[in-house]
Amino acid sequence: MRIVDIREKTVALSSSMRNASIGFQGMTASAVAMVSDVRRGGKPVIGLAFDSVGRYGHGGLLRERFIPRILAAGTQDYADEKQGGPDPFKVWDIAMRDEKPGGHGERPGAVGLIDAAAWDLAAKLQDKPLWGMLAEESGTPKVRVYASGGHYHEDDDLARLGEEIRSCLDLGYRTIKIKAGGVPIAEDLRRIDCALGALDGAGALALDCNGMMALAEAEAFIAAVADRGLAWVEEPVDPLDYAAHKCLAAGSPVPLATGENIFSAADTQNLVRHAGLRPDRDLLQMDISLSYGIVEYLRILEIVESHGWSRRRCIPHAGHLLAFNVAAGLRLGGHETAPLGQLPVGVEVVDGFATPDDAPGVGFERLGNFKALFGDLLA
Amino acid sequence: MRIVDIREKTVALSSSMRNASIGFQGMTASAVAMVSDVRRGGKPVIGLAFDSVGRYGHGGLLRERFIPRILAAGTQDYADEKQGGPDPFKVWDIAMRDEKPGGHGERPGAVGLIDAAAWDLAAKLQDKPLWGMLAEESGTPKVRVYASGGHYHEDDDLARLGEEIRSCLDLGYRTIKIKAGGVPIAEDLRRIDCALGALDGAGALALDCNGMMALAEAEAFIAAVADRGLAWVEEPVDPLDYAAHKCLAAGSPVPLATGENIFSAADTQNLVRHAGLRPDRDLLQMDISLSYGIVEYLRILEIVESHGWSRRRCIPHAGHLLAFNVAAGLRLGGHETAPLGQLPVGVEVVDGFATPDDAPGVGFERLGNFKALFGDLLA
Repeated sequence: MRIVDIREKTVALSSSMRNASIGFQGMTASAVAMVSDVRRGGKPVIGLAFDSVGRYGHGGLLRERFIPRILAAGTQDYADEKQGGPDPFKVWDIAMRDEKPGGHGERPGAVGLIDAAAWDLAAKLQDKPLWGMLAEESGTPKVRVYASGGHYHEDDDLARLGEEIRSCLDLGYRTIKIKAGGVPIAEDLRRIDCALGALDGAGALALDCNGMMALAEAEAFIAAVADRGLAWVEEPVDPLDYAAHKCLAAGSPVPLATGENIFSAADTQNLVRHAGLRPDRDLLQMDISLSYGIVEYLRILEIVESHGWSRRRCIPHAGHLLAFNVAAGLRLGGHETAPLGQLPVGVEVVDGFATPDDAPGVGFERLGNFKALFGDLLA
Repeated sequence: MRIVDIREKTVALSSSMRNASIGFQGMTASAVAMVSDVRRGGKPVIGLAFDSVGRYGHGGLLRERFIPRILAAGTQDYADEKQGGPDPFKVWDIAMRDEKPGGHGERPGAVGLIDAAAWDLAAKLQDKPLWGMLAEESGTPKVRVYASGGHYHEDDDLARLGEEIRSCLDLGYRTIKIKAGGVPIAEDLRRIDCALGALDGAGALALDCNGMMALAEAEAFIAAVADRGLAWVEEPVDPLDYAAHKCLAAGSPVPLATGENIFSAADTQNLVRHAGLRPDRDLLQMDISLSYGIVEYLRILEIVESHGWSRRRCIPHAGHLLAFNVAAGLRLGGHETAPLGQLPVGVEVVDGFATPDDAPGVGFERLGNFKALFGDLLA
């Protein structure tokens, strides 16, 4: 098996929505196709990957550094000797050749796409779903899934929020996360109460503050929402301000969640060492695709578990089918989707849970709008 | 004044040298030209920037995100109302629009180039050297400069190391830094003693380990070199492993240096909070160009000083003329150059010190090999 080509397409995800940190007018994401020389049914077997959302596409870095390294490597450098397909751990090491430690920003997202395509290709060549290839236990898992949305809108904000919550409930979701921290607190409270009015029971609503509050502001915010029975408050302060997290965690009755802007094992280690988060209630949301992919995510889980956390407290950020397969295979605590966004979710939710199927690989090619990206390659 | 174009050129810096972390065969760097509509002597006034070395060029990110944002902005968004040129702080804010917090990796290097070009342009339009524009005190500063080199070579390693040290002394340098930590300790000790034999006095030799040792290994290494009168040991362990730094600092008689793979104010804050470094002897080496440029470096100095450090303990990584201007203007503790590398140093060193001149801007266009990069633009 030889990797004969790797293609990247940058997709515009333009939207008028905003959160407390950024607008999405110019947002992009990358799709990657890793083409092997193995043919089945007259077509090449191809590994596919799709970016997570919020940190822009990774086309420049992929073309400048990571794709050329893989294409220049010999088959013997990345072959899985037992299975015949690519060994994603070896592919990862090739991508990271001559890369210095530290500086985990855009690079992890670019390498994460290479990693995801290699896993998809390996799973397809083994005729297994990715979740099955990763699973250590037998049986088909049921994955708890929550819906992420509730962005601020310039017009009819409250009405659109209520409508969105009802649509998510109709789609089968039971836990919903909305944006907070981007408007005065009284306006956020109106949005929270609007959402709670449409939802059922404690722990059904989570808030995402996108890391923009100062510590004192976050303390006041949490005090103001503490009696609302929230599932969690996410990224109240800067994702790298471990000392601020420690102060908040010491005083917050509400569970805290963070990690989506922490992109490596090294940064995760600092988070669990220095941020004072509570393994019995807080949540860790490192994004698999943006954090160097599954190879690094396995290291992240090792660090997290060695600090007394259960992997059931890990719910990766901004899920699509890759994260769903990992959450299912590794029995993580849950999966995030954005059911009303432009991106295909690819999972069917029944009463708050989803079950993976047995089709080989990750499943991106079964999503209509993905297929069009690479033209005749996926026809 | 309007910014009418921003061009990027990626330059290959291919070399057979290596350090403990990476080889430099495929290394690249970016040069940037920010073209204004102001003409002097029949030519446009242009702001120039050149990358730091070791983290690859930033062309993809510049073209995908940061250049389009600046070119799409209106003059009123970035004009310095008093001076008429660009206000580098406003240019910086435009570059960082719709960017999430956290994830300080490649993005800081791309934004750092935009920042540097804006400062160069602003200084030229004010007819001032950049160091003079930044200086709070009057008088021309003398900047302590050290030479960085001593990479591992496959052939004739010791002979080439001795030759390199003698060349640096001939060029006027008095403090020299060589690579360490990439070979067995006995071989490193032979290299260290070879270098010390050519140098004069205590504190003339520093070691750069490039962050690849585990904690126990670093402790053994520091114990083995502790009696050599070293100026400092740099990046003994992973740049983000604050807890390991804390253990090392508690026991090391040798000054420690780190920071070149810490690319933001947020990460610097964690370093000075959690890594146990000693403001009376250790060194902080955050790279100005790779850390979002001068605008962010001013925030970094504020954090460092608020934690009881003097800015005289800051010696930025991998200097060229941009870092030299900042070190001179802000009275930092020193400046790093690689006098025997492929990159132009641009400063003349006399008995270990260099003095800036009064030519406007940063001075890149006065370096012969820089001028060729942008063709007729700089002719």
